[in-house]
Amino acid sequence: MPLTRISIPACLPPHKARALADAVHEGLVETCNVPSRDRFQLISTYAPDMMLIDPTFPDVRRTPEASIVEILFLEGRTIEQKTRLFRRIADRAMQAGFAGDDIMVTLTENKPTDWSAGNGRSYGDRPEAVETSRRSR
Amino acid sequence: MPLTRISIPACLPPHKARALADAVHEGLVETCNVPSRDRFQLISTYAPDMMLIDPTFPDVRRTPEASIVEILFLEGRTIEQKTRLFRRIADRAMQAGFAGDDIMVTLTENKPTDWSAGNGRSYGDRPEAVETSRRSR
Amino acid sequence: MPLTRISIPACLPPHKARALADAVHEGLVETCNVPSRDRFQLISTYAPDMMLIDPTFPDVRRTPEASIVEILFLEGRTIEQKTRLFRRIADRAMQAGFAGDDIMVTLTENKPTDWSAGNGRSYGDRPEAVETSRRSR
Repeated sequence: MPLTRISIPACLPPHKARALADAVHEGLVETCNVPSRDRFQLISTYAPDMMLIDPTFPDVRRTPEASIVEILFLEGRTIEQKTRLFRRIADRAMQAGFAGDDIMVTLTENKPTDWSAGNGRSYGDRPEAVETSRRSR
Repeated sequence: MPLTRISIPACLPPHKARALADAVHEGLVETCNVPSRDRFQLISTYAPDMMLIDPTFPDVRRTPEASIVEILFLEGRTIEQKTRLFRRIADRAMQAGFAGDDIMVTLTENKPTDWSAGNGRSYGDRPEAVETSRRSR
Repeated sequence: MPLTRISIPACLPPHKARALADAVHEGLVETCNVPSRDRFQLISTYAPDMMLIDPTFPDVRRTPEASIVEILFLEGRTIEQKTRLFRRIADRAMQAGFAGDDIMVTLTENKPTDWSAGNGRSYGDRPEAVETSRRSR
């Protein structure tokens, strides 16, 4: 159950926004045991004066296409998985025409009991949810 | 001190957006000891290509009205309270005309010392904040 | 690596939005060891019916300019630092013409290994990231 927020500059062409969303989802599937149907993404555009991003911190070179990816997902992923996730997202975004330095990613975590996928049921009641969380440790 | 983000499709009629916001707030009050005046909600609309939601994962049937509710609140709620919260939000949303499967909810937590309700004061300095957090365990 | 979301009412003049963003960044630099170039902020505006904020909870008086600041940053800041951060943000916002009661702030935390600043590299691989996180304890 990842929920991803993708914040992009208004100047980014729609096909690149979609390509970044695809890169994030595929990265999650490939490195973090996320089921391929488990896709929930929100994309928001920002005018330049509403998206204040340092152009070089800490040691990168961002272009006006710099975008921010926030992923909320189940706890249990290892540091190695997260490291591979960052790499995979950037690689796929670069294949889609992004500069690698333009992709910032940040992760936050919660538990299966913190999700309801619908109909008022807790995701923590599903055996496969707990299993997914465990397998990814 | 919950802060709720409600992400809805642009096609959702405004009265249903408001009904969902009411459902979430009432659910919090009824199951998680949130004071009835403690309401802070941000609602955002998304065009279809900016809100990528799987129509059936894991085993539901979402309509074009599928919406996502993110709640950030004080740690301390039990799994049982969270389970009842999901149920209550969905039930109230269904009363307002939603399909139950269209309401996804996710929770994240922080501490009283992570909030300032205004005027530069930490919420952690308020005895009632700590009390609320404790009562809800 | 803080990421800040600032949610403002559509009626807020742009120069005050910017002043609030500056207040938050300067507060982070001055109280939480955030490097001055480490600035990543997203500002969103909301129509009145999309931003539901109680006018007085718990014991403040909010005006139509009430705004919400969400900061995601590295764990390790002390309660004292957070308390000083709230104070500093409010003081600077008041210097810019805000009512102190109009500034709500909430903090969430993650780890250096939860960030990639760009190019697919984990921020947890950078010695200075761990150092920053430690120094701020």
